[in-house]
Amino acid sequence: MPSAPSAHRLGDIAAHVRGELLGDPGLLVHGLNGLEEAAPGEVSFYGNPRYRKQFEATRASAVLVGMDAQAREGLALVRVHNPHLAYAKLLSLFHPASRPEPGIHPSAHVHPEATVHPEASVRAGAVVERGAHVGARTVLHPGAYVGESARVGDDCVLYPHATVRERCVVGSRVILHASSVVGADGFGFAFDAEGEAGPEHFKIPQVGIVRIEDDVEVGACTCIDRATVGETVVGRGTKLDNLVQIAHNVRVGPLSLICAQAGVSGSAEVGTGVVLAGQVGVVGHIRVGDLAKVGAQSGVAHDVPDGQVVSGSPAIPHRDWLRASAASGQLADLLKEVRALRRRVEMLEKEKGG
Amino acid sequence: MPSAPSAHRLGDIAAHVRGELLGDPGLLVHGLNGLEEAAPGEVSFYGNPRYRKQFEATRASAVLVGMDAQAREGLALVRVHNPHLAYAKLLSLFHPASRPEPGIHPSAHVHPEATVHPEASVRAGAVVERGAHVGARTVLHPGAYVGESARVGDDCVLYPHATVRERCVVGSRVILHASSVVGADGFGFAFDAEGEAGPEHFKIPQVGIVRIEDDVEVGACTCIDRATVGETVVGRGTKLDNLVQIAHNVRVGPLSLICAQAGVSGSAEVGTGVVLAGQVGVVGHIRVGDLAKVGAQSGVAHDVPDGQVVSGSPAIPHRDWLRASAASGQLADLLKEVRALRRRVEMLEKEKGG
Amino acid sequence: MPSAPSAHRLGDIAAHVRGELLGDPGLLVHGLNGLEEAAPGEVSFYGNPRYRKQFEATRASAVLVGMDAQAREGLALVRVHNPHLAYAKLLSLFHPASRPEPGIHPSAHVHPEATVHPEASVRAGAVVERGAHVGARTVLHPGAYVGESARVGDDCVLYPHATVRERCVVGSRVILHASSVVGADGFGFAFDAEGEAGPEHFKIPQVGIVRIEDDVEVGACTCIDRATVGETVVGRGTKLDNLVQIAHNVRVGPLSLICAQAGVSGSAEVGTGVVLAGQVGVVGHIRVGDLAKVGAQSGVAHDVPDGQVVSGSPAIPHRDWLRASAASGQLADLLKEVRALRRRVEMLEKEKGG
Repeated sequence: MPSAPSAHRLGDIAAHVRGELLGDPGLLVHGLNGLEEAAPGEVSFYGNPRYRKQFEATRASAVLVGMDAQAREGLALVRVHNPHLAYAKLLSLFHPASRPEPGIHPSAHVHPEATVHPEASVRAGAVVERGAHVGARTVLHPGAYVGESARVGDDCVLYPHATVRERCVVGSRVILHASSVVGADGFGFAFDAEGEAGPEHFKIPQVGIVRIEDDVEVGACTCIDRATVGETVVGRGTKLDNLVQIAHNVRVGPLSLICAQAGVSGSAEVGTGVVLAGQVGVVGHIRVGDLAKVGAQSGVAHDVPDGQVVSGSPAIPHRDWLRASAASGQLADLLKEVRALRRRVEMLEKEKGG
Repeated sequence: MPSAPSAHRLGDIAAHVRGELLGDPGLLVHGLNGLEEAAPGEVSFYGNPRYRKQFEATRASAVLVGMDAQAREGLALVRVHNPHLAYAKLLSLFHPASRPEPGIHPSAHVHPEATVHPEASVRAGAVVERGAHVGARTVLHPGAYVGESARVGDDCVLYPHATVRERCVVGSRVILHASSVVGADGFGFAFDAEGEAGPEHFKIPQVGIVRIEDDVEVGACTCIDRATVGETVVGRGTKLDNLVQIAHNVRVGPLSLICAQAGVSGSAEVGTGVVLAGQVGVVGHIRVGDLAKVGAQSGVAHDVPDGQVVSGSPAIPHRDWLRASAASGQLADLLKEVRALRRRVEMLEKEKGG
Repeated sequence: MPSAPSAHRLGDIAAHVRGELLGDPGLLVHGLNGLEEAAPGEVSFYGNPRYRKQFEATRASAVLVGMDAQAREGLALVRVHNPHLAYAKLLSLFHPASRPEPGIHPSAHVHPEATVHPEASVRAGAVVERGAHVGARTVLHPGAYVGESARVGDDCVLYPHATVRERCVVGSRVILHASSVVGADGFGFAFDAEGEAGPEHFKIPQVGIVRIEDDVEVGACTCIDRATVGETVVGRGTKLDNLVQIAHNVRVGPLSLICAQAGVSGSAEVGTGVVLAGQVGVVGHIRVGDLAKVGAQSGVAHDVPDGQVVSGSPAIPHRDWLRASAASGQLADLLKEVRALRRRVEMLEKEKGG
């Protein structure tokens, strides 16, 4: 939860982002803003030549720029390798995260056999079940739930109504947004035509767990199902957006980004540094290779090799998809053309025969 | 929460919908129902000539009809400009919303520095954080959460486990359905190849807010992310269905309808009176113009002009999409046809040469 | 909530699944595992010839196999009609579900006019409103909510923050996963160009309910909206995965499977034993026939006959869709081909004319 902004000297700002300052280090900066919105006393960033016009017109007192930027009259510059990243670091500097007081709120429910670190905060109505562990400086916001024998590491934040079901393991510095669900039962049934009360989908007990590694972020209303047997895994530093579905026994590697409303089906594997754009679907039991990128709304039905960019439903290499999309716009015209050609060929054939 | 139905005289009913009554104003009506299901003593509505048969066979005592409907033997009619709207208004009349007693339940947690209007209801286990404001006649159902310094206006309903995160602003007469999430962090990261503990997606602090204007409805498990800087906005009278994703810095204009499982990506703009059908995706940084309509499952990748109807993924004008869809069904036949044509042309060429 | 595994004799195991044992009935088995992962002392299953290699190399002490499997040196076999189903039944045997103590936790809120069976468990922070009924052995986990006059049958499990709104009816042996929402208002509005404060989407009161029959499972963050008038129904033994949307007045028949992130629009009917794969959309007011199967990400825009398999958006018979998909990959080449043919025809025409 970022707090109200503070003020900083430009020299300190440049040092914080390890940048090279062209300007007055004593200048007092009290905020950050976009190139167009920034007022004097604010810092902005310019990382994309598309915004050159806005850069030239900005009223900001200083701008984060690339290493090759030229000094400019009347505007302080901070040269950095990655202006966007530097801007993100300044946002953290100006809006340091605040943390509630440590301790257990009287209306929280912590089982006597649970272990809650004395520096953790367990807020109103949060629940920690028997045998569960909550690490140092972790915050359980109101209504957050940590199930029996589950483990949540240090410096985590569980927002209101986040659920971690029994025995699941959450690393350190993990953020679980509001109403996210870690460890619900996987969707597994075996059809029994001769069930006791007639045909039924016999529920396959989901006795595995979810393991979330360090530095993962899980979006609001995102669901990560526990494994049938074994583990569903989300790797270190991977970020999941809102309303994402991760099915049982999926393994997502480290440093991947899975955008809103995407879904990964059972036992699929998503590699390292993968990007799944919004509303993507990945079928079960396949592998999306390291550093692969999948375009929005695509349906991945087969293995994707490392580094490949794919699009479409079913997904194909992005280049082919662009070609097919362009062609498909011409399809109606093509139909006409072919009909016309047929008539011309008929004519030629007739004349030849005649 | 609508209560049990009451009974009304037909004259009062006609007055309530500003309709013209053809029938006995003293007739007692005790409920509403569909044309087929309605029994004597009930009112129904007939707004679509598709249901002419059902209208002619109905056992209802009275029917809401258009202004041009003819009087009918043995059936009272109420002529109105919009029978569907009039029916909706009667549903409200027959099922007036009930509201829990005002006051704060002993198991709720209201911070001493929060402001809760004395006519508001804060029910069991609901939480209002420091500096937050809850307006008159607003109901926080069990488990609803209003974060630090957030503001919720008058006559709102927050259903169980609805979350409004810190500093967000909710207007008046807003409904937040169960487990909806207002103000979770936007999905923003800057890749840092040289992070302290190796490569990482550095979290860009999301220091902005969500602002929801008056008369908005937010569906169950729908997520509206806070802005990176500034505001994510949902305009007056716009209605969001369940499981919708609104990303950071999106601006949705007034009076739009966004159907279930649709998603709008970061910084996109959705105009006034727009309809996004179910499972639509809108990419970031584009604009869907006023009164535009987007067909179900479409993927909007470019600006949509005001008033345009688009479909498909990527979305194109609906008329073109219909043409392309039709053509695509003929594609396999087309392939055959072209192969046949090629053979015929080869034959002609050979003969000419021979 | 499955508990820690127990140990069983192979003879008892064979009896439990009504199988034919080829091996030592006294052998002690202490767990279950996949063919590759299984260690001595564990049972596995072999139901698909694809895994023949793994079957031949397994270190398991016993394997569940089909009725036609041959005895094998050094490996106990249990012959059954459906090895997958038998394996599921053994998982239940080895991990019997544990249930919290019956009784009402002091921090739960049960209205004095609610009926909670003495064998039910109402855990910390759960809420049961006035006139509601909770059946025998049903567990309301922390934060679960049962609204006014709602009914939940026997042997149900409501996981944390599951919501059942007022007057809805839930059968017996139903599982509602975390943050699922039963009975939120359907998405129904009538546009009123002349509302009191300007144009508005007038809210149509949703005065109906949701009725969930016995043996249904509802996934995490899945939403089932209440009917405008009447009932939204989910039939006996149907299973809904996570993040599914069931709109108002939908009727889903018994024994259907609806996978993650699928959505069914208002008043649609889904028959018996239907399978909707992940991210499918079904438009309103249509019928998906009994035993129909809809492929992942498909968009169903028209009635689907009983037993039909469909795919695509809009969905067409799966066979046609495969043919169209294959053809669509050839489209760009087809364009070239047609252009070439046109030139050849022009040439022929010219020569003929010349």
